[in-house]
Amino acid sequence: MDRKRTAVLVAGSWGTALARVLADNGHEVVLWTRTAEQAHEINTRRRNSRYLPDAELPDGIRAVHRIEEALQGAALVLFAAPSAAMREVARLASRHLEPEALVVHATKGFERDTLKRMSTVLAEELGRGHEHIVCLSGPSHAEEVALRHPTTVVVASLCAECGKAAQDFFMNNAYFRVYTNPDLLGVEISGAVKNIIALGAGLSDGLGFGDNAKAALITRGLAEIARLGMAMGANPLTFVGLAGVGDLVATCTSRHSRNWRAGSMLAQGLSLEEVLARMGMVVEGVRTTESAYALARQYQVEMPITEQLHAVLFEGKSSRQAVLDLMARDKTHENNALISADHHK
Amino acid sequence: MDRKRTAVLVAGSWGTALARVLADNGHEVVLWTRTAEQAHEINTRRRNSRYLPDAELPDGIRAVHRIEEALQGAALVLFAAPSAAMREVARLASRHLEPEALVVHATKGFERDTLKRMSTVLAEELGRGHEHIVCLSGPSHAEEVALRHPTTVVVASLCAECGKAAQDFFMNNAYFRVYTNPDLLGVEISGAVKNIIALGAGLSDGLGFGDNAKAALITRGLAEIARLGMAMGANPLTFVGLAGVGDLVATCTSRHSRNWRAGSMLAQGLSLEEVLARMGMVVEGVRTTESAYALARQYQVEMPITEQLHAVLFEGKSSRQAVLDLMARDKTHENNALISADHHK
Repeated sequence: MDRKRTAVLVAGSWGTALARVLADNGHEVVLWTRTAEQAHEINTRRRNSRYLPDAELPDGIRAVHRIEEALQGAALVLFAAPSAAMREVARLASRHLEPEALVVHATKGFERDTLKRMSTVLAEELGRGHEHIVCLSGPSHAEEVALRHPTTVVVASLCAECGKAAQDFFMNNAYFRVYTNPDLLGVEISGAVKNIIALGAGLSDGLGFGDNAKAALITRGLAEIARLGMAMGANPLTFVGLAGVGDLVATCTSRHSRNWRAGSMLAQGLSLEEVLARMGMVVEGVRTTESAYALARQYQVEMPITEQLHAVLFEGKSSRQAVLDLMARDKTHENNALISADHHK
Repeated sequence: MDRKRTAVLVAGSWGTALARVLADNGHEVVLWTRTAEQAHEINTRRRNSRYLPDAELPDGIRAVHRIEEALQGAALVLFAAPSAAMREVARLASRHLEPEALVVHATKGFERDTLKRMSTVLAEELGRGHEHIVCLSGPSHAEEVALRHPTTVVVASLCAECGKAAQDFFMNNAYFRVYTNPDLLGVEISGAVKNIIALGAGLSDGLGFGDNAKAALITRGLAEIARLGMAMGANPLTFVGLAGVGDLVATCTSRHSRNWRAGSMLAQGLSLEEVLARMGMVVEGVRTTESAYALARQYQVEMPITEQLHAVLFEGKSSRQAVLDLMARDKTHENNALISADHHK
C-alpha cells in the first residue's frame, strides 16, 4: 500500500495505540500532543508513559505540539479526543484540515449538553457533510492493540467509499482486522452506551456478585442499548455485531476497562470524585450516563440500567440497592423484557 | 407456596445446585445418586464432595440410590444427567414416573448419534408429548448458585402452563430469578452450541490472545449459534436473551466454565484424552462439536468456529492455526459475516 501522511489527535491511550497501527501499516504518522513535554518524550524516548506505558513507538510516529503541523498534508485525520474535548479539538483542527483529508473518529460518547453524537460534532465544526465522517469502533482495548494482540473493529460511515478508504488505512494481516458497516448511528450509540453497562458490571463485581449476575446484566444491557438505538433509527443487526455485543462483552469482562474499574471502586464505597481522581484518565461512562438518561426520556425508551447508574452517580443511591433493584424487575416473560421498547414507540 | 415433593436425577454439580434451590424454596427434594456411597455422603455429611464441594446441603435434600424411591410421589422431576446418559436415565425413570409429574431438564447438548435434542429424547423415552417438556437454561454456573449468588435463568416450554409451573417451583426472591420463554428449540440449541464457542474461547485465552480477540470470537459465536437456530426454526430473539448471549458470555468468560478450561488446556498442548482425564467431569462441548458439525451440514449452515474446533479435536489440527484461520476469514463487510447463512438457505 502507498505510504501516506496521517494525523492523530490526541495522544491519549487509544489515539496512541491507533497511531501505532497506522505506523505498522507503513504510514507516516504525526501525533498531536497537548503539551510540549509529552511530544518531547514521544520523540526522544519513543514512549507515551502516562497513557500507554507498555508500547514502544516506532520512528514512523512523530509527535508535535502545534496542531497545524500535525494536519499539514495529512490524507487521514483520526480524532481520538475524549468526548468532552471533541468540539474544541475539531474547532482547532478546522482551520488547518486539508480539503481532501479523510476524517475518522474513535471516540465513544455524546456531547453532554446537546446530546449530539461525535460524528455530528465533527460535521458541524469541520463544515463537512455528516456522510463523510467515519467512526472506528469495536472490542479493542488500547493496551492489547499496543501488544499487537489480534483485534477486530468496524469502520462505520454513511459513505461506502469513505468506509472502504478507512479500512485500507487501518487493516493489516498481522493483528488488526477491519470490517465496514454502513450503520454509523448504531455503531456510535453502541460504543457510547456500553460504557454505562460496564460501570454497572463493575458495580456488580465490586459488590461480590458473580459471573451469573454479570452475564444477566450484560444481556439486559444489550437489550437496553438496542432499544435506544432502534428508537433513534439504527439497524438492529449492529447490536449483535462487533461494535454492539462485541465491544459490550470486551468492556464488561476485561481488567483493561476503565469504566468497569470505576464501577468496581464505586461499589467499594468510594465517592465519584475519589474514583475519578484515582483513575487519572477520562471515564466516559460517567458523562454518558447523563446523556443517555436524557436521550431515554427524549425517545421514551425504557433504560433501567442507565436509570440505576444515574441514581448511583448523581442522586446518592447505594450501589447495592441499585444492583438489587435491577435484579428484581417485575417482568417474568423474557421476550417482554427484551422488546419492551415497543410499548413506547 | 405449597411444599411439594420433587426428584432430581442425577447428583452432578448442576443437579445438586438446583436441588438446593428447590430445597431453599421449601420443597422436599429427593436426589438420585449413581452410587450408594454418594447417597451416604450426602445424607450423613450434607456434602457432595466430588461435584459441588463448597455447598452445604440442607436437610430438605435426601439422597437415594434407587431411582424408584426418588420418583415416587414426585410432582416435579428434574433431569440433569450428562447428555450422553440422558436416554438411559429417562428409560430407567419412565417406569416409575408419576403420571402428573412435571418434567424439566437442565442438560445442554444433543444426543450424538441421532442429533436429537434432550427434550426429544425425554419425550420419546417417557412416552409424553414434546410440548410437555420444560428446559431450564441460562447463565448459571453451579458453583455460584451453590453460593446463592444472584442468578437469572429461563424455563422454556411449548406449553405455557408447564413453563409457568416450572417457574413457580424454581423462582425465589432471594437469588434465583426465572423467566419463561416459549422457544424451547432456540433455548436448547443455544445452551448446547455455546459450549463449542467456550472451547474456542479457552483456546484463544490459552494461546495468550487477549480480550479483544475473545470478544470477537464471542460475537462470531453468537452469529453462528443464531444461524443454526434460525435454520432449524427458532425465534431470533432467543439468541439475544439469557439463554443465548447471556449463557454464552457466562461460559466464555468465567473461570467456572469446564468447556473454557478444557479449551485452554488444549491450547497448552495437551491431547484431548489428557484434557478429559484431568477434568474428571463431562465436557459437553466436545461431543456437541461432533453433533453441531453434523447439524451444520444437514441444515447447510456456515459454522466456522464449530468447523475449526472439529479440526482441532478430531482431525489433529493445531490450536494456533485454528484460531488464526478464524481471525483471517475473508469477509470484510460486517453484515455479510453476520447473516451469511442467508446465502445457503
